[in-house]
Amino acid sequence: MPGKILSNINSPSDLKSLSQEDLLQLADELRAFILDVVSVHPGHLGSSLGVVELTIALHYVFNTPFDKLIWDVGHQAYGHKILTGRRDVFHTNRTLDGISGFPKISESVYDAFGTGHSSTSISAALGMAVASKKKGILNRQHIAVIGDGAMTGGMALEGLNNAGVSDSNIIVILNDNGISIDKSVGALSNYLLNFTTSPGYNKFKNKIWNTLGKAGKKLGPNSQKLIQSIEGAIKTSILKSSNLFEAMNFRYFGPVDGHDIEKLVKVLSDLKNIKGPKLLHVITKKGKGFEKAEKEQTAYHAPGKFNRETGEIEIVDSKNTLPTYQFVFGETITELARKNENIMAITPAMPTGSALIKMMKEFPDRVFDVGISEQHAVTFAAGLALDGMKPFCTIYSTFLQRAYDQLIHDVAIQNLNVVFCIDRAGLVGGDGSTHHGVFDLAYLNLVPNMVVAAPLNDHEMRNLLYTAALYEDGPIAIRYPRGEAVSDDWKSDFKKIEIGNGEQILEGEDIAILCIGHTGNYALEAAKILKKENINPAIFNMRFLKHLDEKLLHNVFKNYKKIICVEDGTIKGGLGSSVVDFARENNYDNHIKKLGIPDKFVEHGDKNKLVEICGFDANGIAKNCIFAGYR
Amino acid sequence: MPGKILSNINSPSDLKSLSQEDLLQLADELRAFILDVVSVHPGHLGSSLGVVELTIALHYVFNTPFDKLIWDVGHQAYGHKILTGRRDVFHTNRTLDGISGFPKISESVYDAFGTGHSSTSISAALGMAVASKKKGILNRQHIAVIGDGAMTGGMALEGLNNAGVSDSNIIVILNDNGISIDKSVGALSNYLLNFTTSPGYNKFKNKIWNTLGKAGKKLGPNSQKLIQSIEGAIKTSILKSSNLFEAMNFRYFGPVDGHDIEKLVKVLSDLKNIKGPKLLHVITKKGKGFEKAEKEQTAYHAPGKFNRETGEIEIVDSKNTLPTYQFVFGETITELARKNENIMAITPAMPTGSALIKMMKEFPDRVFDVGISEQHAVTFAAGLALDGMKPFCTIYSTFLQRAYDQLIHDVAIQNLNVVFCIDRAGLVGGDGSTHHGVFDLAYLNLVPNMVVAAPLNDHEMRNLLYTAALYEDGPIAIRYPRGEAVSDDWKSDFKKIEIGNGEQILEGEDIAILCIGHTGNYALEAAKILKKENINPAIFNMRFLKHLDEKLLHNVFKNYKKIICVEDGTIKGGLGSSVVDFARENNYDNHIKKLGIPDKFVEHGDKNKLVEICGFDANGIAKNCIFAGYR
Repeated sequence: MPGKILSNINSPSDLKSLSQEDLLQLADELRAFILDVVSVHPGHLGSSLGVVELTIALHYVFNTPFDKLIWDVGHQAYGHKILTGRRDVFHTNRTLDGISGFPKISESVYDAFGTGHSSTSISAALGMAVASKKKGILNRQHIAVIGDGAMTGGMALEGLNNAGVSDSNIIVILNDNGISIDKSVGALSNYLLNFTTSPGYNKFKNKIWNTLGKAGKKLGPNSQKLIQSIEGAIKTSILKSSNLFEAMNFRYFGPVDGHDIEKLVKVLSDLKNIKGPKLLHVITKKGKGFEKAEKEQTAYHAPGKFNRETGEIEIVDSKNTLPTYQFVFGETITELARKNENIMAITPAMPTGSALIKMMKEFPDRVFDVGISEQHAVTFAAGLALDGMKPFCTIYSTFLQRAYDQLIHDVAIQNLNVVFCIDRAGLVGGDGSTHHGVFDLAYLNLVPNMVVAAPLNDHEMRNLLYTAALYEDGPIAIRYPRGEAVSDDWKSDFKKIEIGNGEQILEGEDIAILCIGHTGNYALEAAKILKKENINPAIFNMRFLKHLDEKLLHNVFKNYKKIICVEDGTIKGGLGSSVVDFARENNYDNHIKKLGIPDKFVEHGDKNKLVEICGFDANGIAKNCIFAGYR
Repeated sequence: MPGKILSNINSPSDLKSLSQEDLLQLADELRAFILDVVSVHPGHLGSSLGVVELTIALHYVFNTPFDKLIWDVGHQAYGHKILTGRRDVFHTNRTLDGISGFPKISESVYDAFGTGHSSTSISAALGMAVASKKKGILNRQHIAVIGDGAMTGGMALEGLNNAGVSDSNIIVILNDNGISIDKSVGALSNYLLNFTTSPGYNKFKNKIWNTLGKAGKKLGPNSQKLIQSIEGAIKTSILKSSNLFEAMNFRYFGPVDGHDIEKLVKVLSDLKNIKGPKLLHVITKKGKGFEKAEKEQTAYHAPGKFNRETGEIEIVDSKNTLPTYQFVFGETITELARKNENIMAITPAMPTGSALIKMMKEFPDRVFDVGISEQHAVTFAAGLALDGMKPFCTIYSTFLQRAYDQLIHDVAIQNLNVVFCIDRAGLVGGDGSTHHGVFDLAYLNLVPNMVVAAPLNDHEMRNLLYTAALYEDGPIAIRYPRGEAVSDDWKSDFKKIEIGNGEQILEGEDIAILCIGHTGNYALEAAKILKKENINPAIFNMRFLKHLDEKLLHNVFKNYKKIICVEDGTIKGGLGSSVVDFARENNYDNHIKKLGIPDKFVEHGDKNKLVEICGFDANGIAKNCIFAGYR
């Protein structure tokens, strides 16, 4: 139940009449409401707790939705959603047909720009600011709220660089909490830390002027020339270029305490009246106001269900505690790293999510968290590979899109031995359309020199990683889904898999099911259903999409009239398309049915439900076998 | 003929024994040799002329190839190639089986990293530096030479951010000439300009210390406390963070005159002995030493053949002066912009290459050169579109790979009305594997909500642009090749084309040829060859790859037994694959042959020759028709 004040906030206009005291009260209520709901309906927690005061202040001071408010990596926008008419549906967050966990333009006029991936907000805000100017709307504000982590993404810096030369009404709010999901890294992060712990830039400005002023007075007229000379040097040089953001031609303000709502209201009100690009540096604490979340910021980034009182994260029931692909990856790469000291791992800001923490602890100088910078991550890996290292570049499928050019230009053209470990492949569930990893199979398939593989299960995950570690003929990609445990005896001995080698995993004579990756398990389930109908499918685990097992395919095409291809990627350009192409090249006219993600964006919701909707779950596969008519 | 000293430089070790005077002479000879060769064998000119002294100094001071030298956007590396054993083959630059116009690891051990696209060098150098450290090689230098234009690319800033926290031996040489191909833009560019024209950061440092020192002496002991207070504030704050690069934790040196070879040698020698990440700011002049090239820097970036004495650029013969796609694009978008004031154009640093200059002159506030920042360009366009503008985002095919995620995440998911004008699509010729635009058809084909089109010729180019300007149902991509004039009466009236509508462009009954884009012209040529063999192909211009004309396809599959698909893109996932998939879905068993770019990287060379090698030129198409057997 929302608190007394929050209950009456149905849109930001309801905020305007509140007193300062009410605003403080509202902050408490908003924080409590987020905790109440997210503890039961899991989602992102820490980021939104950290910007409660900022969210209220922004909507209090600015005139949304007329003013454009963009939340970079929108998982910090829960408070925003609740204050903009979505309080009563907030419990549907991230569920099928419920509200999205990220701002979404189709969901609300208050969501000025859809933001799932990071570092986009400045570019989008600049676009809107230019559009406003063109339309003669000069009193509109364009606000990008961006974290210190997201600020290291190259495109944020590209946006700053371009916005800095515009005379547009753009306000960048740097939400500096020193952490992305894991702790922020990189020079910028250190810079910001120095900034806020050392006397500070603005303090310095004040101090030096005061000092000079006093000096002028105290030292009398004779010293005026010297003082002026110092002032001149400062003015012409330092004050213009003395701050990273001012170097980019932004007017810099701050740092201010992001939990001091009064101060925020005052500063934001002042900023409204200053023209041109401005940056306000706000210091916040991720997880603010909930002790556990403040202390364990990574765990409470998106904690799942937790106890509202104690903060204890709920242990999921035992049938789901089988090892995940992530766990197996983390264990296995550490094992491999022990055997081969040239193995290194790279992650763009996802050491925990990618399960690299174990290797990081054991080999701190061989795991590189490069911050949110997928492009750099891939080319950095290329540099490592070129000089004899064996880099495992570990990136979520959806984020690897950011480094597509680097994968082609820096790795594939030079045929370097970079292993791409592509996590969160396939449908991811609650994160929705911005985060599903459904394009990788297809966009990797068209890149020359690549090997593209996907494991059926934990054992194969290990063996593919082992194989990749030994592979020295160029880049190899291994893509695997989130979670999805298969067995609990994952720790099998390593077996090298021949590149381009698939295998039959179920004997049968009625119809052939060709699978890639984890979908083979859906097919095995389907076989159980089909058995009841007296249909015996043969199931083939292709393993490799690029370097397709043509020998296996010839056998399949010769022995089965009907073939069903199953993949957890887009239907365009992946396994099914490749098999169809193979058939044409070899003049087979077998009947082929393609199952996978249809050519449209899939929304958020329970992952299994989404797989069902896309029609490649066990039932979907079984139905298609029956529908195809077997033999 | 190379000069006397240059004739004896067969590798950088031959440089080491030269006197300072010899080095000056060598610079003249190297510059003359580049001019001699490039005036006859066209390539990039201005960039390499600008770094003659820097190139010599680097190879003189450093121990290449043991030290790693990476040339960002490698077209500045001609001098490097000439000094590293490729003097006598330099005239084969950019030709088939000749040397590449860019550094290429397979070509020389001195080419530490392949660099065709910009902004990659810092990431690659860091990778190598980390590898060296791992291998215990502590005396190796890792040098990235990067232009001020390339420095605005997001991944360069990602690289700086990550390198800044490493203790690796990395030297970034900022080659600041104030220009990419067109004049550099953006806040960083202004910043660097201020830097070098204002008293300057280093001068300031000296000045303020001197002033304070004098002040202390003059004002006597009573003022000591005040002076110390100023000093303290400066030390703790300003000197730590007063420079963009020092904010990134690089030690900053410079600016130095990049044409003063003695000075360069001295500074570079000093840098060798300083540990950790360093940045040397070098000021150069693009085109240095050749008057015309200094004055008209954009024209002489890659001038084609020119008169070695006068500098006059050779006018190509009249049969090639038909309008190019670029010309037609530039004229047409300007016409459209006159009709619709919401039309805007965006280019990442290619206003001249993309022919946006005309529109820029007529509508300076509606064309945005955002600098080398493809990611920002696309999301900026998304922001414009979301607020009612009609952005034409004009990017070379190969560079759009850089913005793949933004295209998916910011444009396609939100289904925004962004027009992608994809220039340099297909094989580009001399620029080679890093620049061919051969993946776009396939990587766009798999993105939901996209419309993907390619014009047959100049008239269709106009009509597609016109159609795109009217289209309001989401993103639309129009991809077209470099050059390739088709007619000289290009200025036809606008005709709206129905989305997803192909057309038959030649009647025939023997075999069907399905084409996309400019390849239709190759097919028309093929028909002439086939006529002599008494074969009459029907030719269909599909126009749209995504939103395939299925009605047309049904007709084709019903009326022709044999079908040949032709595209100037990768054979995997483009037109041919889509047609094969269509056939499967509709249970057609016609014979289909796919022509296009094979699944490997295509090297540099004459474009027509490359098309021939790939087998989809007129002869190739004709041969395949004959081979297929018609009817």
